[in-house]
Amino acid sequence: MIKILSDHPNRSFRLDYFCSRFNAAKSSISEDLAIAKKILSENDLGMMITVPGVGGGVKYVPYITDAQVLEVQKELCRHLAGPERIMGGGFLYTSDIMFSPGVAEKLAAIFARKFADAGADYVVTLETKGIPLAFTTARLLDIPVIVVRRETKISEGPTISINYFSGSSGKMQKMSMAKKAARRGSNALIIDDFMRAGGSLKGITELLDEFDIKVCGIGVAIAAGDIPETKVGEYTSVVRLMGVDESSGTIDVVPNIQIF
Amino acid sequence: MIKILSDHPNRSFRLDYFCSRFNAAKSSISEDLAIAKKILSENDLGMMITVPGVGGGVKYVPYITDAQVLEVQKELCRHLAGPERIMGGGFLYTSDIMFSPGVAEKLAAIFARKFADAGADYVVTLETKGIPLAFTTARLLDIPVIVVRRETKISEGPTISINYFSGSSGKMQKMSMAKKAARRGSNALIIDDFMRAGGSLKGITELLDEFDIKVCGIGVAIAAGDIPETKVGEYTSVVRLMGVDESSGTIDVVPNIQIF
Repeated sequence: MIKILSDHPNRSFRLDYFCSRFNAAKSSISEDLAIAKKILSENDLGMMITVPGVGGGVKYVPYITDAQVLEVQKELCRHLAGPERIMGGGFLYTSDIMFSPGVAEKLAAIFARKFADAGADYVVTLETKGIPLAFTTARLLDIPVIVVRRETKISEGPTISINYFSGSSGKMQKMSMAKKAARRGSNALIIDDFMRAGGSLKGITELLDEFDIKVCGIGVAIAAGDIPETKVGEYTSVVRLMGVDESSGTIDVVPNIQIF
Repeated sequence: MIKILSDHPNRSFRLDYFCSRFNAAKSSISEDLAIAKKILSENDLGMMITVPGVGGGVKYVPYITDAQVLEVQKELCRHLAGPERIMGGGFLYTSDIMFSPGVAEKLAAIFARKFADAGADYVVTLETKGIPLAFTTARLLDIPVIVVRRETKISEGPTISINYFSGSSGKMQKMSMAKKAARRGSNALIIDDFMRAGGSLKGITELLDEFDIKVCGIGVAIAAGDIPETKVGEYTSVVRLMGVDESSGTIDVVPNIQIF
């Protein structure tokens, strides 16, 4: 039961399901769930929560402790600190990190904890490097992902597009989203790999506004820490990139302690 | 232990790890692992395998039965069959499916089963829609993902690019991969969401060839079934799209029975 529940985070399973799956009485299933709940919580492996009501049952909610969050933050700092990552123009090579399943899982666990009660209907990201992180966060929250595209494709059907100023590239860029992608009036959690001045996140917010979608949270893995004012309001970053010194090969990156 | 092992598929854990994690003797851990192994296999929830040798230990290997594979195939066919998916030019809207964590998990389980012994060092995909599937497959195989990009970015550092003919768009396109992305002489499993004539998969193969990387498998979620000859050799598709009739709104999609 632990395996089935934790393979489907935040999804509610009826007790009946386990009764028929394991051919067992409701009382035995209840007893076993109580034991499973205790094991998980005692070992900091997440929570098992009883969902009341008609559609109710039991669900697994991932949870990591403050100490585990800090450990992930430090690990990301260590990953990022190698001078071989410096690519010129203050840019860092991070594709290997962002596309690593192990890293994405850990970062996503932080966002899933932070935004557990944000009421998001979707996780939204702009292609490409934030996709694994957004996808993994969505899996933990049991909601779908919407990937905002840079190019429109015929297979997307009708789209809504906006132009925005990207500080990273120093030019106007376009982003678009399929009209079929989301229900009007829903809530979105924006997840991305990197934020400098927040131009693309502001663009996503404006694009979502065209769909009457409210942004209920913004999470980024790495935020540039040397930007005095960003274009977006409140956001949560896992680490802050304070500076890159190309001549000495030094990368100054620290955990964001405001995450707690 | 089941939770920890199944959260990290194909990753070997030493018994010592569990001894210290749960403050238990090696003999108790061994006994419990034997029970866990039995529970998983009896309930078709995957396998627990003992890894011999110095670096050995125990690992969880995801496994789904033939019946489960067929169920996933049928489910994908049902998802795809809605006439509202038809976008003109025979294209189908599939973003919601490909970006659904639940669907990606199930499809990835099929690829992880098919390519368990292919010896892949990387999962490679071309952005964008195949990323969740490639990423989830990589997580199950415990290997990293490489995302081949359409545009080169400064943060990628030096890249190698090729031009290829894309049948879907009817024009030449470019794809590129960061020189830092992969070790020369390794093996790659290519995973993508859709294949028509195989132009982009052939392109990926040629690009990987520039890195001395051998393709040890190709898996696609949906393959067009009405193409007499593809540009790539052997590949595995989950379902075959036999035809789309725009006038009647009929989508003919069937499980690929050659998957077994």
